[in-house]
Amino acid sequence: METLCVAGGRVLRPDGSVREADVLVDRETGTIREVGTDVDADGERLDATGALVMPGLVNAHTHVAMTLLRGYADDKPLEEWLREDVWPIEGVMTADDVEAGAALGVVEMIRSGTTAFADMYFEVDRVADVVERAGVRARLGHGAVTVGKEETAARADVAESVDVAVELDGAADGRIRTAFMPHSLTTVGEPFLREGLERAAEAGVPVHLHANETTDEVDPIVEERGLRPLAYADELGLLEASTFLAHGVHVDESEIELLAESGASVVHCPASNMKLASGMAPVQRLREAGVTVALGTDGAASNNDLDPFDELRDAAMLGKLAADDASAVPAEAVVEMATAAGAEALGLPGGRIEAGAAADFAVVDLSAPHLTPTHDVVSHLAYAARGSDVRHTVCDGRVLMRDREVLTLDVDAVVEHAERTARDLVARAGA
Amino acid sequence: METLCVAGGRVLRPDGSVREADVLVDRETGTIREVGTDVDADGERLDATGALVMPGLVNAHTHVAMTLLRGYADDKPLEEWLREDVWPIEGVMTADDVEAGAALGVVEMIRSGTTAFADMYFEVDRVADVVERAGVRARLGHGAVTVGKEETAARADVAESVDVAVELDGAADGRIRTAFMPHSLTTVGEPFLREGLERAAEAGVPVHLHANETTDEVDPIVEERGLRPLAYADELGLLEASTFLAHGVHVDESEIELLAESGASVVHCPASNMKLASGMAPVQRLREAGVTVALGTDGAASNNDLDPFDELRDAAMLGKLAADDASAVPAEAVVEMATAAGAEALGLPGGRIEAGAAADFAVVDLSAPHLTPTHDVVSHLAYAARGSDVRHTVCDGRVLMRDREVLTLDVDAVVEHAERTARDLVARAGA
Repeated sequence: METLCVAGGRVLRPDGSVREADVLVDRETGTIREVGTDVDADGERLDATGALVMPGLVNAHTHVAMTLLRGYADDKPLEEWLREDVWPIEGVMTADDVEAGAALGVVEMIRSGTTAFADMYFEVDRVADVVERAGVRARLGHGAVTVGKEETAARADVAESVDVAVELDGAADGRIRTAFMPHSLTTVGEPFLREGLERAAEAGVPVHLHANETTDEVDPIVEERGLRPLAYADELGLLEASTFLAHGVHVDESEIELLAESGASVVHCPASNMKLASGMAPVQRLREAGVTVALGTDGAASNNDLDPFDELRDAAMLGKLAADDASAVPAEAVVEMATAAGAEALGLPGGRIEAGAAADFAVVDLSAPHLTPTHDVVSHLAYAARGSDVRHTVCDGRVLMRDREVLTLDVDAVVEHAERTARDLVARAGA
Repeated sequence: METLCVAGGRVLRPDGSVREADVLVDRETGTIREVGTDVDADGERLDATGALVMPGLVNAHTHVAMTLLRGYADDKPLEEWLREDVWPIEGVMTADDVEAGAALGVVEMIRSGTTAFADMYFEVDRVADVVERAGVRARLGHGAVTVGKEETAARADVAESVDVAVELDGAADGRIRTAFMPHSLTTVGEPFLREGLERAAEAGVPVHLHANETTDEVDPIVEERGLRPLAYADELGLLEASTFLAHGVHVDESEIELLAESGASVVHCPASNMKLASGMAPVQRLREAGVTVALGTDGAASNNDLDPFDELRDAAMLGKLAADDASAVPAEAVVEMATAAGAEALGLPGGRIEAGAAADFAVVDLSAPHLTPTHDVVSHLAYAARGSDVRHTVCDGRVLMRDREVLTLDVDAVVEHAERTARDLVARAGA
């Protein structure tokens, strides 16, 4: 059984059109061998009757272990929330806790059709363990922060971010890639940032950071340096084609030009930007300027789930409001952002259903009342589908979920363990 | 078996707290007899283990038959969308079509825990037929429009809206209530509006209309009359405690005061307001002023589904963005808006789980990975739950959905009929 045939359904093609076709996968190489109506298959079969085979969704910015804090503290301003709730908890979080939270998040992602994600957190080797077992792809990194730290500790944190990236790159048969992840331009001091960037460049690992999320992150840089944050980033040599920035809410025209020229990508996190009242990213304008815009859930504590279909819908809707134009950020744009653009931003395989591409896909059931009638399947993906409509999830040619049963992780055990871990964590934090 | 006992779960109480309790329902009267841990039940049982019994969700503004247009034309400005897509289709829509679309929408609502809705459309008796069979509650009306019509036709349309309201009020054993529904202050001419309002007042039926949805709806009134739209509405005698207005996006302080003084309610439709780039309603400010704010999906063509949990999430998130404050419109507020405030706005029973209240509720499964851990169940309802988490739906003491199986309508037949009807409709419209 060296092939897997996904049969009887429709396929979302790279040009955005939909046609009836089967998908034949070479399980050895983890790639798509053929897309057509007459494929010759005698291996394993997946039923796609009444369903659509679409590229696996890419969650291009999250902090996956924060699922443990889902619903722990909502409806608070960002600063207060971080200081009073998030940081005290993260201060007592162990490697075991991170693994428990990562497993919960990855289960949730597989159940909603996500096949790849980018993660910024700590205890990264434990996140990598989960990715390896679960069978998804990821670009992982250690989020380095230097503000409020002694010089030695600050330097060590940045060094760890580079070291972890070098060490884990290529793990899990190449499904794990890494990045140097300084937290942001305001939370990592310039000398440390320069050191880290130099070492990352030498090692050939890309860079991921938060940028221009709130005005509180923009104004101090403008005041101190007389430069917009992305002009500062450009001066640091940070804006490369492999760089991907989370948020990009408060970017001006000059910064959009810098992004377009450099080829750096932006990961739009609409739910988080709304929930934390950060603002509205100019997604339509970014795309018009030729910037690659991917989608991310951000951590579950500011979302509060990891369902990528919420992000499709939020991005299409918020993009219209931001542009004051109901025709902005249409359905096909958000589908592309969540798939091909996500894979491109992260520099990972996937994002396209065509011969030769990585066999990373979600099979979405289209038969439910809320997806009826089927005037336009792409519209349904953007506006009406949800994670629970995903029937099967496949990554690297391996079936991770079949008929809504996750095959690589024990969902009940993961849920029970996460619940216990979260309660224990709150107790330990004395909260 | 004159009782129904919902056993083994937790209950969301009217004060927003959550406790373990069973709910005993008197099926004869359709009301809750007892909420407690020691109820004496020998009748029918519904399993609520690992779940939460919450008030049935109230969709306080929709055009339910527009499910037939779901995904038919997205990503267009409001005017163009109405002229090129919606009106040509509605122009050829028959009573049979309306019934097919209403059945699809009601199935979708029952599957996502909605027990009551307000509907503005035409061929209202056919919507009423569906409501009667399905077992939900509704406040129904005929949307009257006079612009572009000859005087006789204009007068007839307004008269029909009042006549339908009088005729259908109290149907389906009282589950159907009605309202006079002039479409909006700009689409119904003043003399016709005055006539209709006078007749509605005589008949004792409340009023529902679109108001202040877009600036295009506000500016002409300000220019022509030198009055804000709600000041004009007040002058017409339209703002009564029983009146509920859809949208209320562009309301100024003077209008918020008029709403608060009159007791008229606003139905906030966040998804529609984003998708049509209408703007952000000042929900936090409205609530602070004491205005009752309910939630609505609007029609499926501008949403694109009728899942009330999307509206909870959208309202909490957009409310924060509108107020530029992450603590605005918190989780408990949107839960209240979607339940008790919805029932209050529509003047229908329901919205509270307590002895003596109508037995209208949704039983939401809390065991899924995306609802783990359970730090805060109310947060989950607002930010992480979705319609597919609803296990059972009960209205007026009758089980409408049990273990995700809709008992009152044949879902497969409804879906198939709607699909066929929608295709035929588009063909007839020559689209």
